[in-house]
Amino acid sequence: MRVGYLGPEGTFSHEAVLSDVDHRELELVAQPTIYDTVMAVHEGAVERALVPIENSLEGSVNTTLDTLAGEAEDVAIAGEVVHPIRHCLIARNPMALEDIDAIVSHPHAHAQCARFIRAELREGVTVVAAASTADAVRRVAEHEGGGTWAALGNRLSAEIYECEVIRAGVEDVAGNETRFVWLAPAGEQPEREGRWKTSVVFWGVGADAPGWLVRCLSEFAFRGVNLTKIESRPRRQGLGRYMFFVDLEGSERDAPVAEAIAGLHQHAEELRVLGSYPVPG
Amino acid sequence: MRVGYLGPEGTFSHEAVLSDVDHRELELVAQPTIYDTVMAVHEGAVERALVPIENSLEGSVNTTLDTLAGEAEDVAIAGEVVHPIRHCLIARNPMALEDIDAIVSHPHAHAQCARFIRAELREGVTVVAAASTADAVRRVAEHEGGGTWAALGNRLSAEIYECEVIRAGVEDVAGNETRFVWLAPAGEQPEREGRWKTSVVFWGVGADAPGWLVRCLSEFAFRGVNLTKIESRPRRQGLGRYMFFVDLEGSERDAPVAEAIAGLHQHAEELRVLGSYPVPG
Repeated sequence: MRVGYLGPEGTFSHEAVLSDVDHRELELVAQPTIYDTVMAVHEGAVERALVPIENSLEGSVNTTLDTLAGEAEDVAIAGEVVHPIRHCLIARNPMALEDIDAIVSHPHAHAQCARFIRAELREGVTVVAAASTADAVRRVAEHEGGGTWAALGNRLSAEIYECEVIRAGVEDVAGNETRFVWLAPAGEQPEREGRWKTSVVFWGVGADAPGWLVRCLSEFAFRGVNLTKIESRPRRQGLGRYMFFVDLEGSERDAPVAEAIAGLHQHAEELRVLGSYPVPG
Repeated sequence: MRVGYLGPEGTFSHEAVLSDVDHRELELVAQPTIYDTVMAVHEGAVERALVPIENSLEGSVNTTLDTLAGEAEDVAIAGEVVHPIRHCLIARNPMALEDIDAIVSHPHAHAQCARFIRAELREGVTVVAAASTADAVRRVAEHEGGGTWAALGNRLSAEIYECEVIRAGVEDVAGNETRFVWLAPAGEQPEREGRWKTSVVFWGVGADAPGWLVRCLSEFAFRGVNLTKIESRPRRQGLGRYMFFVDLEGSERDAPVAEAIAGLHQHAEELRVLGSYPVPG
């Protein structure tokens, strides 16, 4: 089975795939962007893909939501994986913190390690932006900066690019984790076992009227269906026009969930069930 | 009066400030990050600041929401400005599109001009990440890449860094605009005139119970108070714990709004009015 993920090798997506499945039985296919990863399932280039959908510090991953809602009609969410985000300070060879001239990484990693950078690295250290944490480690491995650069990346990327972990766990806030979702072709039902979740997206006919969103959400509340997430995203048609992503407990094959979704259909101009899927734990 | 904005000179924030006020009467103070821009008001380093809060394609500006909700207690929203985002292809000297070796900009600008880049620039053109569109234009002006680099930035930045606009309006989707908000010290009431908006943030005691969010939003719906925006953001305490940002029509001095906010207080563990302010148009 071919499995897509956001490359290059050594990203947190790659790490999350390896933590969740036995990769020796799979052909892992790195994709250049999250958009391409979702669309690879839509177009049949891979049978499964793992994409980040939400981070406990940064919030939703907009590209994932927008692509699932807007273009990838033939794709369904088929499962989820919660993966810890641990940043390491990585260099080509062992070195003292005060010898680091530049710290290269994705801007999110810089932001998540800002206090460490300020407290432990020398004042005025140059901050260099990279396309991903894995790309940052690759650049350090290729000796950009002549050996005085360090990267922020994960342990997997240090192994892949044969670099040294100078210090592990340099993120400022502990408990940083990302929720990834498995994508599969729509119509393939995951096996039923344990707890389930359902993800839907909808937008409105009467979305400008007071109380429209309340009427929509009441369809779930009246039936005791718990929401675990609600998120609005622009519909890309000007300010003030939104679509709403809702995660709820239960499968779309459970009667209260099915009835709530049928009720919501009456208020919504568009409603799509993005998937019903078992969740771990 | 000192006015803060996200620098360096030539950012879209800078452009929005110049479009909204007569800068000859003001001392404009560039700030290194959005976080610093908000905190400059909180700490009294500036009397006003303009920060982006929402873009019609990208959605909310997370740093602005998180800083207003989490740290900047002494700051209130005092007004808003909607500013069009028009990207230009900018180079040091006039040049043909096929001679461009690298296109440097903020990753958001690259994403918003992806179709133009693919269709009009030569295959395999290098994409170089910069900290901001203004930083990208500055790098091109300083002759990085030896004259074969071009930047994506706004017209103001081309003027400031004495570069040429090769082509204007290269964004893929027309109608891209950003909503900025004016920040002022809390307690200073803006003058009352015309249409008003109020922004609040809240999070829950009973946030895990089915229907909690419905009960919260019903406080507005029952009183005919229209919501113009709802957005959830992680509380940075693990997945599944959110705060909710709501924009509504009216001032907190209007009776229905004041009553709805009082009602919401009963459901919320924390509720802050981020500001009531007049809106243009």
